[in-house]
Amino acid sequence: MELIDGRKIAAEIAVELTAEVAALPGRKPCLALVRVGDDPASISYVKAKEKAAAEIGIASRIILPPATIAPADLFALVDRLNADPAVDGILVQSPLPGHLDETAVFRRIAPSKDVDGLGTINLGKIAQDDDSGFVSCTPAGIMELLARAGVPLAGRHVVVIGRSLLVGKPVALLALQKRAGANATVTICHSQTTDLPAITRQADVLIAAIGRAEFVTAGMVKPGAVVIDVGINRVPDAARKSGFRLVGDVHFDSVAPLAGRITPVPGGVGPMTVAMLMKNTLKAFRQQHPR
Amino acid sequence: MELIDGRKIAAEIAVELTAEVAALPGRKPCLALVRVGDDPASISYVKAKEKAAAEIGIASRIILPPATIAPADLFALVDRLNADPAVDGILVQSPLPGHLDETAVFRRIAPSKDVDGLGTINLGKIAQDDDSGFVSCTPAGIMELLARAGVPLAGRHVVVIGRSLLVGKPVALLALQKRAGANATVTICHSQTTDLPAITRQADVLIAAIGRAEFVTAGMVKPGAVVIDVGINRVPDAARKSGFRLVGDVHFDSVAPLAGRITPVPGGVGPMTVAMLMKNTLKAFRQQHPR
Repeated sequence: MELIDGRKIAAEIAVELTAEVAALPGRKPCLALVRVGDDPASISYVKAKEKAAAEIGIASRIILPPATIAPADLFALVDRLNADPAVDGILVQSPLPGHLDETAVFRRIAPSKDVDGLGTINLGKIAQDDDSGFVSCTPAGIMELLARAGVPLAGRHVVVIGRSLLVGKPVALLALQKRAGANATVTICHSQTTDLPAITRQADVLIAAIGRAEFVTAGMVKPGAVVIDVGINRVPDAARKSGFRLVGDVHFDSVAPLAGRITPVPGGVGPMTVAMLMKNTLKAFRQQHPR
Repeated sequence: MELIDGRKIAAEIAVELTAEVAALPGRKPCLALVRVGDDPASISYVKAKEKAAAEIGIASRIILPPATIAPADLFALVDRLNADPAVDGILVQSPLPGHLDETAVFRRIAPSKDVDGLGTINLGKIAQDDDSGFVSCTPAGIMELLARAGVPLAGRHVVVIGRSLLVGKPVALLALQKRAGANATVTICHSQTTDLPAITRQADVLIAAIGRAEFVTAGMVKPGAVVIDVGINRVPDAARKSGFRLVGDVHFDSVAPLAGRITPVPGGVGPMTVAMLMKNTLKAFRQQHPR
């Protein structure tokens, strides 16, 4: 078994982006990060994004509306950021409180600033094999991780567990695209799948994105498979100062010995998500400021 | 083996739509059909759509630009139809001549009039499980055919052969949706898939949409499977007056005896595609003329 080190690969991308940003004339790219409420995981994600931006030389603007914000007020906030020429990219951190319609909020972001890639236009472009848009950061990060780790996909069977809008569906469409680095046969499984292990055991590349701690066990994995663990689950742990530890959707200890390659949690897909957000922000800046 | 009679089911839908259209106050819905050039298959498809519209009471406007039309002129034509309040739905018949960018033309159609559902917004809405848009007619027709024929999908394995924008990708996303009539496990195969028969033989529902005459043979089908044949291929036949006959992507004579249920070609998915176009046109009219 060999670890795929997402932290190391993300750091390489950060070095590349830092050089690109340093070479830009005029003002630096600016990313608006909107975090509604005080969800602990969201606090830590937005902090990581702010930190990564600062390291690369991307400016960030943090906006912290209360969890009780009215839908119309959040729309108005997005509209102001859409209209602000000093803002290149906008990210509204998911998940939103229950009274807010996430799809509607994502759709409200101008497609040219939708660096999180969850708006309708950018999702549709993935289905159209059109790379002029922004691919949402976690699926883009998974594809980049596989490419930089030298995992070929063409003709191989990629099985995705989970059909979410944020990960499962876009990564399936990306792996399926008719282009170098893709061209996989793709299966998408979920909570209603009959005999899940019989399907996941066919995977040459297994992508676990269900949000259930240590759900994927040894009996669900073909020996030698590449296992990509997208889950970031907090499980109580009295031995830690924080009171919890992070585990993936894969039961690492039993799966790692039989996997060909596997991503750890933390340090796998997570850092790649942040790196792709920075890459998208730079792309948005370039599209809005053509030389 | 039992045939799934698409012609009969489409006729039932036509009866329903005729009653709905008759009950509308004011002018009738109007569908603009744009056929570029003189491709023989396109001529016959547009004719079938015009005829179906007339039978239901939907007006149609046929526009026949030459195969040599410049991209800018086709865009201008689409823009005029977008702006015309007397037009509710617009369909640009695929395939377009090689010098025209199909994706760009489809994207140019106003999302509110994109009754063929191939624009970026309407594709993205499928991924978002958002049914406010228009689902492209062939995948919508396949789903409606399965629903009306009483084929359950939840938890079953749907295998789609073909990853086209017109059929393979949208039908995969539809079968995967979290809603009644969907919830399938979905695999998408294509020309680069390794050991295709081993995968297609797992299908409870096999959807063939590759555009290769009689490609799916008995060895690729699990006994008892439901087989949906999307292909409409012209093969030379000196015995026919037309000089050709239509065959599907499935080798009907060898597959039919072992399939549980199967659609014929012609008379399967084809009539459903036309019926869904009419349904979408009525939906577009209603959205643009709320009571």
